[in-house]
Amino acid sequence: MESSTGVKALKDVQSERDERRVPLKKVGVKNIEWPLKVLDKARGHQYTVAKISLSVDLRHDVRGTHMSRFVEVLNNLEMLSPAALLEILSEIKEKLQAEKSYLKMCFPYFLWKESPVSRLSSPLKIQALVEAESGIKSTITMGVKVPVHTLCPCSKEISENGAHNQRAVVEIYVRSKKMIWFEDLSEIAEKSASCPIYTLLKRPDEKFVTEMAYSNAKFVEDVTRDAALELEKDERIEWYKVQVTSFESIHNHDAFACVEKGWLHGADGDFA
Amino acid sequence: MESSTGVKALKDVQSERDERRVPLKKVGVKNIEWPLKVLDKARGHQYTVAKISLSVDLRHDVRGTHMSRFVEVLNNLEMLSPAALLEILSEIKEKLQAEKSYLKMCFPYFLWKESPVSRLSSPLKIQALVEAESGIKSTITMGVKVPVHTLCPCSKEISENGAHNQRAVVEIYVRSKKMIWFEDLSEIAEKSASCPIYTLLKRPDEKFVTEMAYSNAKFVEDVTRDAALELEKDERIEWYKVQVTSFESIHNHDAFACVEKGWLHGADGDFA
Amino acid sequence: MESSTGVKALKDVQSERDERRVPLKKVGVKNIEWPLKVLDKARGHQYTVAKISLSVDLRHDVRGTHMSRFVEVLNNLEMLSPAALLEILSEIKEKLQAEKSYLKMCFPYFLWKESPVSRLSSPLKIQALVEAESGIKSTITMGVKVPVHTLCPCSKEISENGAHNQRAVVEIYVRSKKMIWFEDLSEIAEKSASCPIYTLLKRPDEKFVTEMAYSNAKFVEDVTRDAALELEKDERIEWYKVQVTSFESIHNHDAFACVEKGWLHGADGDFA
Amino acid sequence: MESSTGVKALKDVQSERDERRVPLKKVGVKNIEWPLKVLDKARGHQYTVAKISLSVDLRHDVRGTHMSRFVEVLNNLEMLSPAALLEILSEIKEKLQAEKSYLKMCFPYFLWKESPVSRLSSPLKIQALVEAESGIKSTITMGVKVPVHTLCPCSKEISENGAHNQRAVVEIYVRSKKMIWFEDLSEIAEKSASCPIYTLLKRPDEKFVTEMAYSNAKFVEDVTRDAALELEKDERIEWYKVQVTSFESIHNHDAFACVEKGWLHGADGDFA
Repeated sequence: MESSTGVKALKDVQSERDERRVPLKKVGVKNIEWPLKVLDKARGHQYTVAKISLSVDLRHDVRGTHMSRFVEVLNNLEMLSPAALLEILSEIKEKLQAEKSYLKMCFPYFLWKESPVSRLSSPLKIQALVEAESGIKSTITMGVKVPVHTLCPCSKEISENGAHNQRAVVEIYVRSKKMIWFEDLSEIAEKSASCPIYTLLKRPDEKFVTEMAYSNAKFVEDVTRDAALELEKDERIEWYKVQVTSFESIHNHDAFACVEKGWLHGADGDFA
Repeated sequence: MESSTGVKALKDVQSERDERRVPLKKVGVKNIEWPLKVLDKARGHQYTVAKISLSVDLRHDVRGTHMSRFVEVLNNLEMLSPAALLEILSEIKEKLQAEKSYLKMCFPYFLWKESPVSRLSSPLKIQALVEAESGIKSTITMGVKVPVHTLCPCSKEISENGAHNQRAVVEIYVRSKKMIWFEDLSEIAEKSASCPIYTLLKRPDEKFVTEMAYSNAKFVEDVTRDAALELEKDERIEWYKVQVTSFESIHNHDAFACVEKGWLHGADGDFA
Repeated sequence: MESSTGVKALKDVQSERDERRVPLKKVGVKNIEWPLKVLDKARGHQYTVAKISLSVDLRHDVRGTHMSRFVEVLNNLEMLSPAALLEILSEIKEKLQAEKSYLKMCFPYFLWKESPVSRLSSPLKIQALVEAESGIKSTITMGVKVPVHTLCPCSKEISENGAHNQRAVVEIYVRSKKMIWFEDLSEIAEKSASCPIYTLLKRPDEKFVTEMAYSNAKFVEDVTRDAALELEKDERIEWYKVQVTSFESIHNHDAFACVEKGWLHGADGDFA
Repeated sequence: MESSTGVKALKDVQSERDERRVPLKKVGVKNIEWPLKVLDKARGHQYTVAKISLSVDLRHDVRGTHMSRFVEVLNNLEMLSPAALLEILSEIKEKLQAEKSYLKMCFPYFLWKESPVSRLSSPLKIQALVEAESGIKSTITMGVKVPVHTLCPCSKEISENGAHNQRAVVEIYVRSKKMIWFEDLSEIAEKSASCPIYTLLKRPDEKFVTEMAYSNAKFVEDVTRDAALELEKDERIEWYKVQVTSFESIHNHDAFACVEKGWLHGADGDFA
């Protein structure tokens, strides 16, 4: 038995009939690392390396999915954009005869920022996240993890001098009617903190950020609420989740707070 | 102004009134590492080190929570058990005047296993996870991540000799009416794989596991379904989730499959 | 052919003669996780979970080593102490007919500390490390990674108010003539920083540590030098290395400094 | 007091005289993430994201170094090459008035490989490492961590069918007289293993790699020796180190072996 490519046809074990009657929610590949070109608001595009998961649902009567097809579809990706994401998901559904397809990816993304006084430019790495799903309808969730600075209001209030402060990270995830840029979410994250952080700071800049943070003391609770209020104001955003984690400098553990749109009615059973 | 402990009363910034009208879903501490004594089915108890997250909800009109109280409650934990978990959550709710309290922890947990032929004993590390929540009612979710061995049915079928195989991990999370042991979940995980794995194997054992795996080829889809069927049979279990990840030895990425009880009607928006 | 255990003797492939004439520096197992009981200066002992690597050299004319024997030796370890370490290494050399044997392990280790004002006790996790080697003579290197607090002298000097500060970690490795406790090294680490850190702090404690750090501003360079001077004073210590890493709160990267005894004459080609 | 840039001159605390008489071996920044363009043997160049450490020695009589200057120098890097590395190190020495400067970086690097039978192309991620030092003379050490496949000769010999196999990683570090490409080192790594691994494999490819691995069983000791022999043959190479780690599929721990050029006379005190 020969296939058209000239190699002997090999048995397709994955396509065997399955009798266990257990449909699977997701079957696929994960932790694929992949070089990526991504849309960039300020510069047109930038290059990065993503960690990707791709999956589909699996009917109860089929033994397995064909994992190599996920990689074949990825091979066609030229530049990451919302349209390209949906195209990938749609191709996967078709190639794997599935009803639903899923994609998750995260990658370092760089913001080129100017220091506040000396106006020197340097790249700040944030973590970008995308989660998309295509079934009868499609949804794309976008996220960022932005490093910021928090200064403790309690420590400032009770101490003669100084106040403990630290690196923190603001995570924002959104679903929206219109395109939202990673840059837009990062701006909200930075604005909500005691102070943004930078890769390159000269002495006048260091003076500026130290004093700005001291005059703008915030708990993780404050940062979370201020980010939520900003997100509520943005009419493009249909759903959001904010989580702020502060690497407490007087402890060896972290403080965190989180909220999501309409959370009182939501479920949250995730292991994080 | 003096408190009863003789130190000057310091302003309680956290208790300030908040005007932003944003209730927070969770506020707390995470990544606390803590020495722990845990109930052990076979040996009574074992010692380990846990990574813990504790949190509460926060009313819209209060500025912050008192993070140190989470640690004070942990200080009272003597041995981890379902009862001790609920006691912690209840104390936290009270101390922090919250409506809901949450706990997550994960820790290495050891199973003392005998090798299959030479019957030599050695410890196998699994990862144990606990997630609990206390509001009007309380729920405890228990989980394990158990390392196992999978051998690819497709590779076996199409190749003259051998078959690629690899380390894999079976994750099982459950909610149950009655106490479930980590050992019970691990047993299901190991039984569903091509073969269990061991820390100590002599040559006769190595022959045994090699041959057992070869005669028991399984895709991640197979392992997931077989584990799900076992969990369906256990009457104590009200809800479960199974995820199997195989560190594919012919690729630099992983294959995975997952299912959960009644998943067709469930939501799953988690970033994992 | 039957062995005394009743199982058929299986060919010993590892013992085959090797003709490539390449002696190997180290052959062994790593990333074994193991429950451990460790000597504790204040409390007699404590329990933890270690990650362990064990290895030996391999003669040019032998094909492989017998990896299961490393695990058999570990099975005999009852309590970690310098004497137990040397015993393990000596047993390994003998069982594997090697000239040198090596051990590396790291594990979380807890210091029970009192907060500075309210005198409440809580556990602080440090990372403990042990590296030992046994050949013609034996050496044991002990290390700690201790979380501390650093406050930037430059930021304090140039700013009207406040100063950026952050969590940092002091790493100290030593070889000594007499037993050194993890507690001894941790004390040096904490003393050299702007301020120690704690798991449990009430408001009066938070005031104390904030003010102490502000009055004791230190660069990573300062912490490194102060720790080195302490180590030079300790007559038990024959060799040391100090590395301080500060998780800069105004940047998304870290600052570090390191020094070791007599470093000007040393080599340092390690990938870290 | 005004500087030429119009901002008030701020005190230079780092340049204060230090009286402790402790010269520091290294002072600098680490864990900076940076977008990078790298020379690529087959395609001219590729884009990636690096994690970077930069440092200098510090004289005993100076209090601190000026950390921001490391970032300023990085800002000038256009494409990573040996010449660019030495230029960076030389600039750093000058800007920081140091005698020695050091650089370490690691980044994902992609090899575009064809599957062995169906000849489909896909990217395989390896980890690339560069460590360089500039003092009186300069040295560059280059390294790769290449994922491969190993199949156990013992398991194959003693079992009726099959043999356990797994993903493994070959690490090679070299110093050379002439330029060595990451591709050259990767080729040695793949050739020394039981079989290379690929991101995209169709059924005929899977049959091929399964059978190739089965007919080419190798312990970590074998892979290490075979890689060492290849490196010995390459006249450009002055020094090398090989380490092979196999993620044993019948255990939850790893096996490893390592060797370096002339190791019997070398020192190796690194915590890895």
